[in-house]
Amino acid sequence: MSGLPEFELIDTLLKPLAVGAPGAFSLTDDAALLPDAPSGEAFVVTKDALASGVHMLADDPPGDMARKALRVNLSDLAAMGAQPVGFFMALCLGPNTDETFVRKFVAGLAQDIEEFSVPLMGGDIIRQGGPFIVTITAIGSVKKEAVLRRNRAEPGHSLWVSGTIGDGALGLWAARGELPGLSEARRNALIQRYRVPQPRLALGRALAGVAQACIDVSDGLIADVEHVCAASGVGCEIDMTQVPLSDAGKAALHADGNLMKSILTGGDDYELAFAMSADQEEDLKDLAKRTGTPIKRIGTFGSGKGVRVTDDSGAELTIARSGYRHE
Amino acid sequence: MSGLPEFELIDTLLKPLAVGAPGAFSLTDDAALLPDAPSGEAFVVTKDALASGVHMLADDPPGDMARKALRVNLSDLAAMGAQPVGFFMALCLGPNTDETFVRKFVAGLAQDIEEFSVPLMGGDIIRQGGPFIVTITAIGSVKKEAVLRRNRAEPGHSLWVSGTIGDGALGLWAARGELPGLSEARRNALIQRYRVPQPRLALGRALAGVAQACIDVSDGLIADVEHVCAASGVGCEIDMTQVPLSDAGKAALHADGNLMKSILTGGDDYELAFAMSADQEEDLKDLAKRTGTPIKRIGTFGSGKGVRVTDDSGAELTIARSGYRHE
Repeated sequence: MSGLPEFELIDTLLKPLAVGAPGAFSLTDDAALLPDAPSGEAFVVTKDALASGVHMLADDPPGDMARKALRVNLSDLAAMGAQPVGFFMALCLGPNTDETFVRKFVAGLAQDIEEFSVPLMGGDIIRQGGPFIVTITAIGSVKKEAVLRRNRAEPGHSLWVSGTIGDGALGLWAARGELPGLSEARRNALIQRYRVPQPRLALGRALAGVAQACIDVSDGLIADVEHVCAASGVGCEIDMTQVPLSDAGKAALHADGNLMKSILTGGDDYELAFAMSADQEEDLKDLAKRTGTPIKRIGTFGSGKGVRVTDDSGAELTIARSGYRHE
Repeated sequence: MSGLPEFELIDTLLKPLAVGAPGAFSLTDDAALLPDAPSGEAFVVTKDALASGVHMLADDPPGDMARKALRVNLSDLAAMGAQPVGFFMALCLGPNTDETFVRKFVAGLAQDIEEFSVPLMGGDIIRQGGPFIVTITAIGSVKKEAVLRRNRAEPGHSLWVSGTIGDGALGLWAARGELPGLSEARRNALIQRYRVPQPRLALGRALAGVAQACIDVSDGLIADVEHVCAASGVGCEIDMTQVPLSDAGKAALHADGNLMKSILTGGDDYELAFAMSADQEEDLKDLAKRTGTPIKRIGTFGSGKGVRVTDDSGAELTIARSGYRHE
């Protein structure tokens, strides 16, 4: 990068992001040393890549791109019931990635490093001929026997989700200038939800050792519940009328009833979807209150295969594709 | 990817690479669970990104690209004295990355996963509009008090390197059709060295708790020794005549004496450069024999600043840039 090669960039902009991690050695060495895992806990590791123009719009604010890249990884940790420890980042700068972009990106990242107390521990910066890409490897820790998996849902378990579903996908459309019927405020609320998702870390941590199975909704509600079904060898019936929508989501659906399928398959929600047995429902209400996270029961696992969605008449909804694929 | 989207790719090609890591859950979950670190050891983590056309030639064999991407990360672990545990990979496929490319890439990766006993534990696959990029996060473990750092070289310590220096840079030129004076066999030896470097894991592990400072030679010998000098607050004098060269490197230098500066600054060697005190030299010979790694003393750390290189007359070599920068 003109006037700001890799070494200087690390020294001036990234080193301050590593102060919370003594084992990062101020980013001076070939690798970082992880602290010991808390007693009885093991490390959990996830890695996600995001490309400008694919997972983020090319004109999204750079600070929001950084926050999204970190948060989608934290969301994976949440889905395992883990507490963040630190993260590693590779920045793949494109020909047009200038110093202003990088400074804004780093400022957004610094904001979330503070919000989630998760230090940068190392990584790499390269320059290449394509779009801006960031890959993050996030590390968390969880009590070994409490780690949340996808493969333990059983017939009779209920399906729950946190927060509201569909805002990520609707936010992408709003950012592209679609959904013309919505007010400016609602459009902005959806766009912000697309750009800066909220990883459900407190909920995930509270569900560790409690929920029967868990996943974060990144590919789309139906696709992700299908992942749980496939891993667990069960089926699931989702009651469409119970899927929680935000006010902006409701307004969008009111303006165009066809959006419901997209809400169910659009992805980028980063809510948790999880299986609970019937006798856990009272505990669950306490847990939701304690973590300040709205949760809702939206379906039931059964002995079938795959996901069925029923509408308000109880009829099955036909859905051609279950999730959004970036390919 | 036409006919082979992300889910299928993971299922058919990548899942077999994770069999060595029970905590990778056959790549079915949001994240992987690391095993406990061996008693008294801590995890070491490194992350490097490689782009086609920058760190690898666009027409390098895909299997070699995979092996290089893994090996440069393993080399970082070697420089810390760590033993590999597993790795995470993000594949950023370009518009032209087809199934044949990915299959060959995965075949090369599988070969090195077996050679180094380092399982794939997770990651991500995306499609984007630029060149093929792979980022790898490698995890190793090392006895905490024995971890190798860059910042402990002192005046009076000797500088040693493993193997031979310059072959990576010369191999890049050979691959580009330069170095016309060399035989086909020597050209191929250099090209292979550029494409598939040899991480010095056994040596690094043996140096843990023994060497005073260590780095792997990736940016260029002089640049990397400068990193050690800067971190340690010392200077270093390198005797150019002692820098070990391969037969192919000697032949290239014989054909063009000007190549010496490039050999010293070209990078991509992935040898270890390390500081030892004078009383350690006998132990070091045993250690080299035990690990089967050739090593050579090439310089001395002093109280100055930066790196000086002297030629066979003892005069100082003037070098404009100390290392290769991909920017």
